[in-house]
Amino acid sequence: MKLATLRGESRDGDLIVVNRDLNTGVRVPNVAANLQAALDNWAVAEQPLADAYEQLNTGEMPDSFPIVTSDLTSPLPRCYQFLDGSVYPNHMAVIRKARGDSLPEDFYEKPLLYQGMSHEILGPYEPLLLPDDAPYGVDFEAEVVVITDDVPMGVSREEASGHIKLLGLLNDFSLRAIIPPEIGRKFGFMQGKPANALGPFVVTPDELGESWNGGLLSGRYVCELNGERFGELDPGRDNAFDYLDLIVHATLTRGLCAGTVIGAGALGNEDRSTGTGCIAEKRAREFLETGEAKSPFMNFGDVVRLEMFHDDGRSMFGAIEQTVKRA
Amino acid sequence: MKLATLRGESRDGDLIVVNRDLNTGVRVPNVAANLQAALDNWAVAEQPLADAYEQLNTGEMPDSFPIVTSDLTSPLPRCYQFLDGSVYPNHMAVIRKARGDSLPEDFYEKPLLYQGMSHEILGPYEPLLLPDDAPYGVDFEAEVVVITDDVPMGVSREEASGHIKLLGLLNDFSLRAIIPPEIGRKFGFMQGKPANALGPFVVTPDELGESWNGGLLSGRYVCELNGERFGELDPGRDNAFDYLDLIVHATLTRGLCAGTVIGAGALGNEDRSTGTGCIAEKRAREFLETGEAKSPFMNFGDVVRLEMFHDDGRSMFGAIEQTVKRA
Repeated sequence: MKLATLRGESRDGDLIVVNRDLNTGVRVPNVAANLQAALDNWAVAEQPLADAYEQLNTGEMPDSFPIVTSDLTSPLPRCYQFLDGSVYPNHMAVIRKARGDSLPEDFYEKPLLYQGMSHEILGPYEPLLLPDDAPYGVDFEAEVVVITDDVPMGVSREEASGHIKLLGLLNDFSLRAIIPPEIGRKFGFMQGKPANALGPFVVTPDELGESWNGGLLSGRYVCELNGERFGELDPGRDNAFDYLDLIVHATLTRGLCAGTVIGAGALGNEDRSTGTGCIAEKRAREFLETGEAKSPFMNFGDVVRLEMFHDDGRSMFGAIEQTVKRA
Repeated sequence: MKLATLRGESRDGDLIVVNRDLNTGVRVPNVAANLQAALDNWAVAEQPLADAYEQLNTGEMPDSFPIVTSDLTSPLPRCYQFLDGSVYPNHMAVIRKARGDSLPEDFYEKPLLYQGMSHEILGPYEPLLLPDDAPYGVDFEAEVVVITDDVPMGVSREEASGHIKLLGLLNDFSLRAIIPPEIGRKFGFMQGKPANALGPFVVTPDELGESWNGGLLSGRYVCELNGERFGELDPGRDNAFDYLDLIVHATLTRGLCAGTVIGAGALGNEDRSTGTGCIAEKRAREFLETGEAKSPFMNFGDVVRLEMFHDDGRSMFGAIEQTVKRA
C-alpha cells in the first residue's frame, strides 16, 4: 500500500491511503489519526489500511478525493528517531580525500550510523529556512529511507527485514562548511544537519517488486538542481552495507521504536558518468581532477528536486522539490 | 508546579499534577492526556495545570490520590529530541587525559552538544537492559535537564530562558568501552549511549527559587552506587557554559520542538572531595594518581541512585534508582 499525510490541525497531520497511481486518496480516521499512530499499532492497523488501499485501486472507495500534492506534508512531520548511515563508500571517500581526510580504518567492518535530528521533518515542497547561505555551504543529499515498527534489541539480519514496514525518499540537507569542524569535536553532527525532508509518499515493500531485495532498493534515482540534471543514480549498487546491516548495528544496545526512520546516506555510484547525489561529491571530484571545486553550493533561491522511478517510468515515492530560503 | 507520568495504556503514559510535597497527585485528562501533549500546547495548558497544582497544595482537590512512586514512569517516556552537552570541563578533561586525549581546542569557545537518543526514556525505577555488562564498561552519568517548549531558530540568550518550562534529573547511561572507538569514527555517539532515564518529577523553574538563576541550577546532587555515597556535587559550579548557551548553540540552524530535553553533561566539580558524577571520572582520577583504575564499572545487579536536594533537605525531583540487568 501507499500512504501520505495531509497538512492538518495536528502537528502530525492526517494520514491518508493513496492509490497505486498516486492520484487518489482517502482519509482513514477510524484506523489511525496519523502515520505515527498507525506505526505504533501496526499489527492492528495494517489490514484495514490494506483494505482501504484495495478499494481505492478498484475505484469503489466512497469519500476518496484527487490528490493535490501541495496539500501533502511529510508522511512523518516529526518522529522519535532518525538514524542515518553512510553505506556508499564512493560518496564519503571522495569527499574526505578532497579535504585530506580518509575513511575510518574500519569502514568496511561495521556500518557508520549516526543519531540524526528527528523532531522536524519537512514536507516534500517545504523550503529549507536558514539564517544564511554561502557561509554554510548548503548541500542536498539524495537518500532512500526505511521506516520500521518496534524492533527488539539484538535483532538478527533475518528478523530485521520483517521490521521494515515502509520505504521512502529523503533529502538530507547538509551544511558542508559547518560539518568538518563539528565532527572534529567528536560529538557528531548537529549544527551541520538542519531539518531534512521526506518524499510525499511512503510505500510498503511489496509495492516495490524485485527492486527491493529485502535489504536494499534498486532503481533510477534522479537528482536535479535548478531544473538541470545533476545525477541519475542507482541506490542498489556500490554499497558496503544494506539496511539490514544498519538495523543490526543500531540494535546492539537499544531497541528501535515504531516509526524509526533509517537512511543509508547520500547515494554514490562508482560510475562517474551517473553524476552525484550531492554537490559536495561533485566538488570533491572537481578538486581532485583540476585542483579547483567549481560547482557552487546552494544559495537562497536554489531548488533541488529528487525523484525515484520504477523500470516502467512510474514514480516510486513522488518527488521532493525544495528551495533554500532565508529564515 | 510539579508534574509526573503514571504508567498507562498509551506509550506516553498519563500526565498527573503533583503537590509541592511530592506525595499527592491528580489526573488532568481534560487538560492534556500526557506531558508531550501539554508541552505541544503549553500556552493553553499552563494555567489549568497551575490551577490544579494550587488546589492540590491547599488540599481541596477532588479525585486526588497518594503518589505510589512505583506507579510512575518517565515524565516523557519518549520525546522527539534529546540534546546533551558537556559543560563541566573537569569531567571531560580528566577522562580524556587518562586515555591520552585532550579537550577540543575550542572547548571554551562554544559548547559541545550532541544529538542523543530520545525515542525511549526509561522511568526512574526501570532497569537498564543490556546484552552484556563487563565488556561494555557500563557507567551512569548524573545530569540535570531542562525541557523546552517550541524555540525558534536563532533565539537569543535573553529569550532562551523563557522557553525553559521544566527541569528534571537525568541518568545518562554510557558504555565506556564502546564510546572511544565510536566517536573516533566521527559520527558521534550511538551504540555507546543506550536508553537514559528521567527522574520521576519535573518542575517549573519558579519552584526552584534562587537555586535556578535562569540558566543554571545549583543544589546538592547526591549519587550512590550500591547504597554507598559516590558523589555529592553542585551542578551550579565549575561550568564552562549554561543551558542558555546550549539553546543558543542548538538553534543556529534549527528550531527546537516542544518537549526538547537538554542535558548539560555529567556533573564534575573541581573540588575532589565531592566525589564524581560518574564512574569513568573516578577511574580516570585513580589512573592518573596511581597508574591503575581500581573502581569497577557497573555489572548486572549493580544499582545507581541519583537525587537532588533543596537547601532545606526536600527532594527537588524525586530519586532515580536503577539496576543494570541482562536483556
